[in-house]
Amino acid sequence: MPVSLKQPSDLISVKGVEFSAVDAGLYQNKSRDDLVLIKLRKGSQVAAVFTKNVFCAAPVSIAKSHLDITDPEYLLINAGNANAGTGKQGIKDAIDCCNSLSEHANIQVSQILPFSTGVIGQRLPLNNIIKKIPELVSDLSESMILQAAEAIKTTDTVAKAISKKLVINGRNTTITGIAKGSGMIKPDMATMLAYVFTDADINKNILEKMLTHCVDKTFNRITVDGDTSTNDACLLAATGLAAVSISDQNSEEYEDFSKGLIEVFKYLAQAIVRDGEGATKFVTIKIEHAVSTEECLSLAYTVAHSPLVKTALFASDPNWGRILAAVGRSKIKDLDISSLDIYLAETCVIRSGELCSDYSEEKGQQEMAKDEILIRIDLNRGSVSEEIWTSDLSYDYVKINAEYRT
Amino acid sequence: MPVSLKQPSDLISVKGVEFSAVDAGLYQNKSRDDLVLIKLRKGSQVAAVFTKNVFCAAPVSIAKSHLDITDPEYLLINAGNANAGTGKQGIKDAIDCCNSLSEHANIQVSQILPFSTGVIGQRLPLNNIIKKIPELVSDLSESMILQAAEAIKTTDTVAKAISKKLVINGRNTTITGIAKGSGMIKPDMATMLAYVFTDADINKNILEKMLTHCVDKTFNRITVDGDTSTNDACLLAATGLAAVSISDQNSEEYEDFSKGLIEVFKYLAQAIVRDGEGATKFVTIKIEHAVSTEECLSLAYTVAHSPLVKTALFASDPNWGRILAAVGRSKIKDLDISSLDIYLAETCVIRSGELCSDYSEEKGQQEMAKDEILIRIDLNRGSVSEEIWTSDLSYDYVKINAEYRT
Repeated sequence: MPVSLKQPSDLISVKGVEFSAVDAGLYQNKSRDDLVLIKLRKGSQVAAVFTKNVFCAAPVSIAKSHLDITDPEYLLINAGNANAGTGKQGIKDAIDCCNSLSEHANIQVSQILPFSTGVIGQRLPLNNIIKKIPELVSDLSESMILQAAEAIKTTDTVAKAISKKLVINGRNTTITGIAKGSGMIKPDMATMLAYVFTDADINKNILEKMLTHCVDKTFNRITVDGDTSTNDACLLAATGLAAVSISDQNSEEYEDFSKGLIEVFKYLAQAIVRDGEGATKFVTIKIEHAVSTEECLSLAYTVAHSPLVKTALFASDPNWGRILAAVGRSKIKDLDISSLDIYLAETCVIRSGELCSDYSEEKGQQEMAKDEILIRIDLNRGSVSEEIWTSDLSYDYVKINAEYRT
Repeated sequence: MPVSLKQPSDLISVKGVEFSAVDAGLYQNKSRDDLVLIKLRKGSQVAAVFTKNVFCAAPVSIAKSHLDITDPEYLLINAGNANAGTGKQGIKDAIDCCNSLSEHANIQVSQILPFSTGVIGQRLPLNNIIKKIPELVSDLSESMILQAAEAIKTTDTVAKAISKKLVINGRNTTITGIAKGSGMIKPDMATMLAYVFTDADINKNILEKMLTHCVDKTFNRITVDGDTSTNDACLLAATGLAAVSISDQNSEEYEDFSKGLIEVFKYLAQAIVRDGEGATKFVTIKIEHAVSTEECLSLAYTVAHSPLVKTALFASDPNWGRILAAVGRSKIKDLDISSLDIYLAETCVIRSGELCSDYSEEKGQQEMAKDEILIRIDLNRGSVSEEIWTSDLSYDYVKINAEYRT
């Protein structure tokens, strides 16, 4: 059960972006859609970031190189198989998929970006995919957003999608994003795919800056299990069909659009954590008054990745000693315990390095019993604050991952 | 159920080291010994290393400062309460325990080293401990080793102790060690206490070198969950009552004794992993042909701490893609995939960065079904090899840590 995350509704189509989804039989024992095609209007601007895992999957290598050559018009995405750890054969298979689509859609191969997510190390069922390409091409429609969001799920229990209508200078523009991800979730980046579309007119240079900023503040601030996938990708596309144009980074339009955009990214990133494998809690870890962003993140991730903190969160147990121990072993420089405060939401647990005099087990219990938990660690020595989002470690996390391939 | 770890037997007393253990009621609902006194013959040499966690527990601070002042003669150890995160009150409580023992044993307070292990953040039940001190002092005996090993356990399911008789230059000497630890286990150091005694005659300078070397190669090579405790300590004491004397680091005696000593340390360190919380597998991760020890350890720990690798180990699932993904996200410099090999014991999984042509799921399954698993990662670029030991992530790990305080 995801934490406070509902089935998406009220999705708004983006002019110039069409979707289709089919069941290509990539999940052997399940009847579900698992293959998606997304078509972007010719002339759309596209920016994308990919996993930093050295073992990046075949489709990631190809998508990167295609993106360098030309502006893509088609995104071909499959779930059920990551086409990772598949060596030269994997590259060949991904190219063969693109070739097939290229023939049917009558476009250049380099205008196709392939994406895969699912089990690592098994050969892509090439024929299953190729056989479905005509159907994918003929089914394309601006309204099939939710179907696409459903079809890219792997261990996700709920589809992740959101739309936002913005009015900029009295003119309408829409942002709609879909994402998938639940396990192997860590910054830089997670086992996730995310696609965000807008009909605003934005040049590639600005689009890339927007994407980098948004990813840095959202998808690179989440962790479920500290594992970075081989397949992560996040793409932002602008079709330019709305009457909103953003060409100046110092303009009010840029500001307004960016605000809306980051909300879409934040929703999708948090949705991945809310639906984290086995998650029963949505946890924000906020570091306050630190010297630098690096210091914040290093400390926050040490706490977020502690299995002992995570199991205490699962048990709704205010076992603050484990938070303390994690802070103590984090490698941040010159940590002065005597100026350290720790809070559970507004409940002070540690003040100046010692147990807060008015803290009680009951107060702690009250905070930890909630579905959404805020752990605040105040270093009281600088002006930088950052937060990250994570989930707890439950029986179901072990179950999902122990039984993943069976 | 620990992995291939039996109740200790054939323990050999060390001349000049006496033990006693009593039930001080530190575990409210259990009848078990939980308080230990160890007496070292006057003139014994002692070396010790402690946790590097910034939030070190009160007894750690005191033990460190006492060790700086004088040669200790008494070790006072309690389980059930870590006396950590207890601030100034914790320091006062630990000193009060030492004061009480000082009066009864008629020694200086600084000759006592206190140690605590158990729940963090609760006040030490001072009276329970002080009340039992006369009994502890009068019960001291060279033969009570196993009772002491039993009494320092927390979530350990089996006592950890080993003895080794060495013949050096035709003369006998004994090494006997006890340890505890099961969760919050990570190098530098683990939630563990370890005490190793010998009747050999070794000066403090050499003893310290031996301890540092042994800890570095054993206790600092294990990880259960990546969490470093507030209370870890490892102590090596030499009573000098045997006719074996080691005073030269370049002597054959030094070599022979060191060999025996590291075997004792290795047994105790591995015993902690074998009895790791919820462990069903004992896993060795060996990095071969790396450029440096740091490179080996960085890569090995990335794999060892991956919850996805750990759940695959629990499931006996040869999901090598998760090992690959962990290697790929490790931050080691200039990793060249094309020269990387991965083995499960002798079964080649990855050769030159690609799936090995003669690998089969059956072969992988065979290796993963074993209780003891060896993951070998060969970088083929240097001359350094290192191994670390870890356990899997099971339902029981979550259960033990979710229910720890209830």
